[in-house]
This record gives sequence, C-alpha cells and structure tokens, in this order.
Amino acid sequence: GITRLSFTEEDRRARELFGRWCGEAGLNVRTDAAGNLIARLEGARPGAPAIAAGSHLDTVPRGGAFDGALGCVGALECAQSLAAEGRRLAHPFEVVVFAEEEGTRFGSGLLGSRAMAGLLGLPELEHSRDREGISAAQAMERFGLQPQRLGSAARRPGELAAYLELHVEQGPLLENAGVGIGVVTEVVGIWRYTLRLLGQANHAGTTRLPMRRDALLAAARVIVAARRLTAERGAEASVATVGQIAVEPGAVNVVPGRAELALEIRDADEARLSAIAGAILAEAACIAGEERVELEVQEGARIAPVPMHAAAWRAVRRAAEQLDITTLEMPSGAGHDAQSMARLCPAGMIFVPSAGGLSHCPAEFTPWEQAETGVRVLERTLCILDQRGIDER
Amino acid sequence: GITRLSFTEEDRRARELFGRWCGEAGLNVRTDAAGNLIARLEGARPGAPAIAAGSHLDTVPRGGAFDGALGCVGALECAQSLAAEGRRLAHPFEVVVFAEEEGTRFGSGLLGSRAMAGLLGLPELEHSRDREGISAAQAMERFGLQPQRLGSAARRPGELAAYLELHVEQGPLLENAGVGIGVVTEVVGIWRYTLRLLGQANHAGTTRLPMRRDALLAAARVIVAARRLTAERGAEASVATVGQIAVEPGAVNVVPGRAELALEIRDADEARLSAIAGAILAEAACIAGEERVELEVQEGARIAPVPMHAAAWRAVRRAAEQLDITTLEMPSGAGHDAQSMARLCPAGMIFVPSAGGLSHCPAEFTPWEQAETGVRVLERTLCILDQRGIDER
Repeated sequence: GITRLSFTEEDRRARELFGRWCGEAGLNVRTDAAGNLIARLEGARPGAPAIAAGSHLDTVPRGGAFDGALGCVGALECAQSLAAEGRRLAHPFEVVVFAEEEGTRFGSGLLGSRAMAGLLGLPELEHSRDREGISAAQAMERFGLQPQRLGSAARRPGELAAYLELHVEQGPLLENAGVGIGVVTEVVGIWRYTLRLLGQANHAGTTRLPMRRDALLAAARVIVAARRLTAERGAEASVATVGQIAVEPGAVNVVPGRAELALEIRDADEARLSAIAGAILAEAACIAGEERVELEVQEGARIAPVPMHAAAWRAVRRAAEQLDITTLEMPSGAGHDAQSMARLCPAGMIFVPSAGGLSHCPAEFTPWEQAETGVRVLERTLCILDQRGIDER
Repeated sequence: GITRLSFTEEDRRARELFGRWCGEAGLNVRTDAAGNLIARLEGARPGAPAIAAGSHLDTVPRGGAFDGALGCVGALECAQSLAAEGRRLAHPFEVVVFAEEEGTRFGSGLLGSRAMAGLLGLPELEHSRDREGISAAQAMERFGLQPQRLGSAARRPGELAAYLELHVEQGPLLENAGVGIGVVTEVVGIWRYTLRLLGQANHAGTTRLPMRRDALLAAARVIVAARRLTAERGAEASVATVGQIAVEPGAVNVVPGRAELALEIRDADEARLSAIAGAILAEAACIAGEERVELEVQEGARIAPVPMHAAAWRAVRRAAEQLDITTLEMPSGAGHDAQSMARLCPAGMIFVPSAGGLSHCPAEFTPWEQAETGVRVLERTLCILDQRGIDER
C-alpha cells in the first residue's frame, strides 16, 4: 500500500517529482498559500480564463496508487502532449495538484480545493489536528506554506473557465457494466448522524424478555430499518450505512443499557436525502418507543450534493463518443476536489473503472488501457471546452 | 457499592467477623482447603448426615450488600436462634460460606461449592488468572489455603443430608407479583456462543446496497431474530441475550466487513435450550446466506440446567404455608452455589424480593421485613427437613 499523508516528507518528494515533470513539459510551476501546486501553460487568446485539470497526490494510510494520482498525472500528460505536438490552446491550461484531499491526517478534507474556491477559513486549519496534536495550520507552516495568507489561494470568479478531474471510480459499476468511462453527473451529498439508544443495563439471567429495555436490540432494529427504508424510499444510488456501533456495559451476561450508532446517508438529490433521513429517524423513534429506550439524535456532517456542470459532462460524453468509447452517466458516491471547484467554476469529472470496485487499499487497480482511455477522454474534453466554450450546448 | 473480591484483605476481614459470630453462637468453625468456611453445630442423632445452609461473601466490583451475604447471615441466624433457645436438631447443622462464587476475579466462578461437590480440579485453579496475572491457586496459597490439597475439600456422598440457600432474587418477579418468597425449582442452564459474520469492508459511498456484504447488517438481523425466536420457541422464563458486539473496520464511511457477537441463552430445560439455540443458529446461517456473509460459530460455556430437589422445594413451600407467607415457584435465572451442591446432595433455594429487580449494583436492596421473612422460612424449612427427612413426600 501507499501512505502519502499531507505535508510529510513523502508528500514533499511526490510534489518535487511532479513539479519537475511539469517544468520539463514547459509549464510554469507555483505553489499557493494553501499548498496547491499549480502548473500553467499560457493560451493563445490574451486575457482568457484558464481551464484547469487535476486531482490530489495525498493518500489514505496504506491506500492505492491510483486514487488522486491518476488525475494529476493525466492532466500533466495532456499538457505534455500539447507541448510535444507544439499545439496551443486558446485558454491557458492549468494542471492542479490539490493539497490534503483525503482528510485522513487532520479529519478535515478537500482543504486545497476549498481554499481555491474560497470556502476554507483559517480557524478550521487551526482547530483540525492530527494524532500528534499538530494542527493543519502548524503542519502547513512547517511545510513552508503560509496558512495566514490562506485568502490569497482563493481564485477570483471568472479566473477559471472550467475544472476537469479524471479519477478512478472507487466502486464496481463501470467494471460490472463493461463500460469505458463514467460521466459524473453529480457528487452525492452526505448526511451523518450519531444515534444513542439509552435503555437499562440488567442481569441477562433474571430479566425476562418483556421486562427488558435492551439498547442493542433497539439498535439492531434501527440498522435493519435503515437498510429497508433506504431501499424503499431511495433511488438506485442511494445508500445508508451504519459503520460503527458501541454498546455498554458490553458483557456477555448483561442486557446492554446503551448503544451508539454512526449513521451515514448519501444521495445525489437533497430532497431524497432529507426524505430518507426523515424516514429512518422517524422509524428509529418508533422503535425506541416500542423497546422502551430513549433515543438521542446528534447531527453530524451535512454535505450538500453538488451537481457537475451540464456543459462539462456533455463535453465529456461528446469526447467519449468521438473516441468511440462507451459511457455511463452516474453520480459519484465519494467526495472529490471537483465538488469544491464546482462552487467556483463549471466543473466536470471523468471516471475510469476500478478493478473489483476496490479502493483505499493496496489492491486498488485500473488496467493500463483503461487509465489511458481516461486520459484520452480528458484531453479531448479539454479541447472541446477550449474550442466551443463552456456555455455552448 | 461493596467490593469484596475473593482472597483479598476485604475478604479476610469479612471472614474473620463472620467466623467470630459463628464461634460466639457456639459453632465449631473450620476452613477447608478450598477456602470454604464451615461452622458446625452437632446434632442429637449420632452419625446423622449434616444439613447445610449458606451462600457466599464475595461480591462483584461495586456490588450490593445482599447478594450472598444474606444467605450466610441467614444461616448463621438459624444457628444462633437454635443455640439461644437451647434447641438441638437431630442432624448436625452446618453454616457454609463458599469461596469465590461470583467468578469476577479469576473468570471462573462457584469455586468453593464446586470444590465441596468434587467438581473442581487443580488445573482450573492454576489456569484461571486475575488481571495482575495471579492464578487462583497462587491467590489461595497467599491467603493461607492449600489448593494442592483441593481434594480434601470434597465431601463424601451421604455426608450431607441436604443443602439450603437463601438468596436475593436479583430480578423483579417477586416484587412485581407482590409475593413474599420464591421457591426455586431449578437453576437455569447457560449456553454461550461467539458468532462471527465475515462480509466485505467497502466504501460506503461507492458500494450500492445490492452489492454490499454488510457484516453489521447481518449481525443486526441475527440479534432481532434471536429475540423473536426465543419468544416464539421458549417458555416464559427463557432468555437470549446479545450483550457484546464489535465491528471492523468500524469507520463511519466504511461498510463493516466483520462483526462479532456474544450470544447467551438461558433456560431451565435442556431440550428447550437446545431447541432455542438450534433455531437461532439455523436462522443466523440463513441470514448469512441472504446477506452473502460467512458465519463462524464458536461454542462457549455450556452449563446444564440443575433442578432443585423436589423434596427440598416442597419443604420450602410447606414452611412458607405454615408461616402464612405467599410463594411463587420459579427457576433461578442466575447461577448459585446451590447448583454445585445439587450434584452432591438434595438442594433447595429460597428467594426473597429484590427492590426494582436490581442486583450487582450499589442500589441492590431487600426491605428488612422481607429479608427476615426469608430467614424465618429458611429456619422452618430446616426444621421440616430435620424432622421429616429429605426423602419423605
């Protein structure tokens, strides 16, 4: 597996290598105050806004080689091939490596892309800390960055004409469908809750079933209901997950008095997110009543779904058609830098298949031809946007 | 709460106090090789086997004042009142304080009563260790006992005519029924299992519901099924409990790949225990198949139900009738020294109400009059057994 956490020696070496490649391709390389690496190729039309493409180089611990890196290398290859062929786009082209996408080190992700979109404030960098207690701001300073000048990393509206991101799907849909390219229509929203069920711990031998206020039984019913309600109320891509559970006192011979669940719901449509969450919470309240336990609901993260720009994904679809590559329109169930960039400029994403749907693990893999297909579609999309502009239908 | 773990300074002080009281009542006090304190009052009929009564003085951490202690003090009061009135039973009477009933310190309970019944071997004392790594055998030696001579603590068959134990119910049945005395018909059997459900950990955003192999969802369905099947297949007092659960990897945004449950089933009837366990395991296998997870079942403790001797519980019932005290025949859902002693001689148990059904906590309480009622029934039962003998119907 690959472990390349942000603002570490591994990160520095990856950036230096990537920056050198960019320089060799004739790009003008700089790093902004938030740690985003920006490599720019000027365009033919004076004063035109830039088209950007990229992704991130940081990984989760023991992650794969493709997540993020493919989109960076793919964007660089587009620049290299333009430079090698002596072609010049009308717009400037920027290859961007965003800082700290995964959120693994400080518990707070998409830092670089949010900074570029003007969505990140210094307090978050000061409060988000890693396991050693080092804040993101401190780590960035030690890395030679200027978190105090975070605002300077924000791009002005109109400065970028579009943002494109090539990425591995991290799921099995493309492979299962035997399709070459996923055209991302939106990045799903994520709503998280902590559910606490408070019953009565009691002797497992002397407390008969009808007398019990079993917090784990209530929790189990909520987990089963969450799956059923999501399948009933949701769309094909709607998901609800309980990924964590803890019970107290947690002894083999004691009826659990307390259970705590982490519930996460993802959907591309905010109204549907709200409907699924509402149905699960209502059913949880009903189950709590039946099992005579108290229910406490604590709202966690609430990330809104972000649609990709229709002109961007139409351009991706057209590029694939021109190259005779099959496509599938799909939401992205995972978060990406493109969702921050979509708040700043028209944004689009291109997915390539993940073997076995695996990601965030050493087995993460995309066959070479499929990766190459992704880069070719990225380059063609770039040219289409460059020629036709983002607003053309 | 009261913390009096076995073979500690607190245990020693309790034993010294109790032993002094026994001596003052004219009893002949000794401690056997296993640490059981035995205080004997000789009977009128030469060579008659003894009738024993008692319980234990060790507690769980931060436990209550009544669990165990009531049965010891109650038996002593019977002896004191016989001595004070100058009465003499035909049989010798032995007040017994059993060593290490709770099993809290070494993970292995009923040590003293199992030793007396010849059911305990030295290897178990050597292998059972407390948190500091001290084995039960070492702790006993440091306490001045002789675990190497464990066999000498075993009583010969025929040496005891009967064993009676007064104990708090540790459940809510007597209080709810407004009844004075519980006549224990049997001590339930306990079957324990560890169930492991092995699915596939996966990204909670990109793995759609039909593709998931969610170990926690499968576990939740097993928990719900265990309750339903126990209610359907069991008797009124049958219980099944899942008191522990652990999932891996245990992250809010990862579908759980592994879940482990501790399942415990208790019933007074072995055939019913087997039927309930069989139904739950069959349903678990079915659920595992539906959710496409693997099921591993590991058998844990398997303690058989132990019936109390019919003559003993009839004597208890008759004693209560004579004293005009209401009774309820019931199984004991908790384990007790009487279940070891029942393997050696006819044994019976008398329950008094537990306020709110609470036990193993500081709030454990039995009102004074109800405790006194228990002691009066114990004494009357003792006299009935002494006069009529255990075998009379």
